[in-house]
Amino acid sequence: MGKGRLEAFSDGVIAILITIMVLELKVPAGGDLADLRPMLPLFIGYVLSFIYLGIYWTNHHHMLHATERVDGRILWANLHLLFWLSLVPFVTNWMGDHFTPLPVAAYGIVLMLAGLAYYILVRSIIRTGQNRELAAAVGRDMKSVASICLYAVAIALAFVSRWISAGIYVLVAMMWLVPDRRIESRVGRD
Amino acid sequence: MGKGRLEAFSDGVIAILITIMVLELKVPAGGDLADLRPMLPLFIGYVLSFIYLGIYWTNHHHMLHATERVDGRILWANLHLLFWLSLVPFVTNWMGDHFTPLPVAAYGIVLMLAGLAYYILVRSIIRTGQNRELAAAVGRDMKSVASICLYAVAIALAFVSRWISAGIYVLVAMMWLVPDRRIESRVGRD
Amino acid sequence: MGKGRLEAFSDGVIAILITIMVLELKVPAGGDLADLRPMLPLFIGYVLSFIYLGIYWTNHHHMLHATERVDGRILWANLHLLFWLSLVPFVTNWMGDHFTPLPVAAYGIVLMLAGLAYYILVRSIIRTGQNRELAAAVGRDMKSVASICLYAVAIALAFVSRWISAGIYVLVAMMWLVPDRRIESRVGRD
Amino acid sequence: MGKGRLEAFSDGVIAILITIMVLELKVPAGGDLADLRPMLPLFIGYVLSFIYLGIYWTNHHHMLHATERVDGRILWANLHLLFWLSLVPFVTNWMGDHFTPLPVAAYGIVLMLAGLAYYILVRSIIRTGQNRELAAAVGRDMKSVASICLYAVAIALAFVSRWISAGIYVLVAMMWLVPDRRIESRVGRD
Repeated sequence: MGKGRLEAFSDGVIAILITIMVLELKVPAGGDLADLRPMLPLFIGYVLSFIYLGIYWTNHHHMLHATERVDGRILWANLHLLFWLSLVPFVTNWMGDHFTPLPVAAYGIVLMLAGLAYYILVRSIIRTGQNRELAAAVGRDMKSVASICLYAVAIALAFVSRWISAGIYVLVAMMWLVPDRRIESRVGRD
Repeated sequence: MGKGRLEAFSDGVIAILITIMVLELKVPAGGDLADLRPMLPLFIGYVLSFIYLGIYWTNHHHMLHATERVDGRILWANLHLLFWLSLVPFVTNWMGDHFTPLPVAAYGIVLMLAGLAYYILVRSIIRTGQNRELAAAVGRDMKSVASICLYAVAIALAFVSRWISAGIYVLVAMMWLVPDRRIESRVGRD
Repeated sequence: MGKGRLEAFSDGVIAILITIMVLELKVPAGGDLADLRPMLPLFIGYVLSFIYLGIYWTNHHHMLHATERVDGRILWANLHLLFWLSLVPFVTNWMGDHFTPLPVAAYGIVLMLAGLAYYILVRSIIRTGQNRELAAAVGRDMKSVASICLYAVAIALAFVSRWISAGIYVLVAMMWLVPDRRIESRVGRD
Repeated sequence: MGKGRLEAFSDGVIAILITIMVLELKVPAGGDLADLRPMLPLFIGYVLSFIYLGIYWTNHHHMLHATERVDGRILWANLHLLFWLSLVPFVTNWMGDHFTPLPVAAYGIVLMLAGLAYYILVRSIIRTGQNRELAAAVGRDMKSVASICLYAVAIALAFVSRWISAGIYVLVAMMWLVPDRRIESRVGRD
């Protein structure tokens, strides 16, 4: 079965998620700088979540580029990933409006479950025995595992210091912003 | 006529429906666990409807994978299906906010009419004489017919017990989550 | 220049328009039948506009199916059509909330300008000298011209009787629901 | 790596942006002409932003048409462009509701940063050494640089006269509405 619609559907969902977040940036009550200031936390959250969704989209792109066939299991592993990503706007807005321990932890929980879903999706693709992925996947999994551990730490620390948790979220994003060179080159050598 | 745009358009509509539901998950008034609790019914409804739309998307994917040509009748049978699916967010939100007999029945009515529209779409495709579908369709129709009957039962029972109805909706979703192996293998043998 | 992205972009915009209308169907205040009744006019308007957007999508599909090349003029004629279609949810909601002369006329004005934009788009495609379209276009234009005249009549009559205007909108939709057999068969013969 | 998903994702995001702006056109409180009048500034802003997003879409279309390969750098340069475009609905609504210096300047800032992001994207594509672009790009860059300068002027003048700034925004849109004939013909000669 072709991967065309899987890509198209995922592109659609991520494109919508990345843009509906902006709907929460309500029109300020007035036209002065003071009217813009209360939006700052939400705006920073928007930028961070935009980057996260951008990372998922580009990595999804890389991953499927090296995939030929998809089956029912992969379709559902992908829908599972999209489910957790679909909650990103909700937790972004909650954290933006209430920068308190629980919303900060909730943001990490959704990111962690999205990371886990991505890990499951990678495994589902590897299971189909498309060899060129196998070697590369080891490296990629390391990064996934590290991210999931960092999210877990950030979730726990949210109840100690929200700022450290927020810092970890930024750190993980930075870690992924660097494109996965090894995989690109490995796939290129095949 | 090619099926490319039919797939792209359906992917777009389902991707939007699956994501706009999350817009109803309003940002909680505060940052405590107590602020999250009133959202629980709506969240459960969101998960169920996400799964239903995911089922429709994957089955739509399987069905069209084995289809070569589309005509005006198929385009409209597909739009008819999308119309009922487009009401899923509305009834999900209504049931989530008011877990009373009528909204629970309304959820079932929309699912039943979507199921019926899917059945009509399958028949429209079979009519074009694309043989590989014919044999497989019998099995699929059985499942469609069973679902439609179960929805009808759930709608009637909503006025007796909302919980039994809700249970039936979960049951039908489970029934469809299992991918249609017979069709996949039949198509594979062609 | 290929037509792929023109189709994909138009599919995206129409898919979004057809689904965001449903966002205006606000969750009823209660769970009884009485809570559903005030939504009836808006719901009927939603069905009508869904059909209109479906008609534009299927005709757009047919038209571009018989087109090979697109240029800058066609891209903008298409954006012009999408602009008027993008106002359909707005006028649908206005007419649904206020079934008075002006909103009913406004609905007709948007449909008329969309019809005019479609006519201009057809002409832009014919201008590129893709012959197979030329012959077929005459028939299609007749229908376009008739629609535009009927819209004009409905707009004027909105200030006499809103019901006659609404009836004309339903009539024009019916007129277009029948797929353009002549063009399909002409293209088929090429 | 193919450009298919880059195009599909960009089409999706721009299609959503162009249509969610219309969600801000709230249903008027009544059915009279007087109820429509307060919406006029927002409606004019909607038309201008629709044209701007249309310009970005068509130019994106032209640019990628002459591009064969994309890499990670191009993916992120494109996401950067989409980020600034995603803020267009927000600043459009702000300017529409409050036609005062700051919102008018904010509109220009977002347009300027989008223009800059587009310039960076063009440079990222040229860097990959796809020659046919190189020659054409010089002409296109001139227009990009001129736009960015005009935006800077408009931002500064917003605090002197909002009307001059608004006039400059219209002027730049007009400047881009004319399709980039030179590039089209150059690419055609390759």
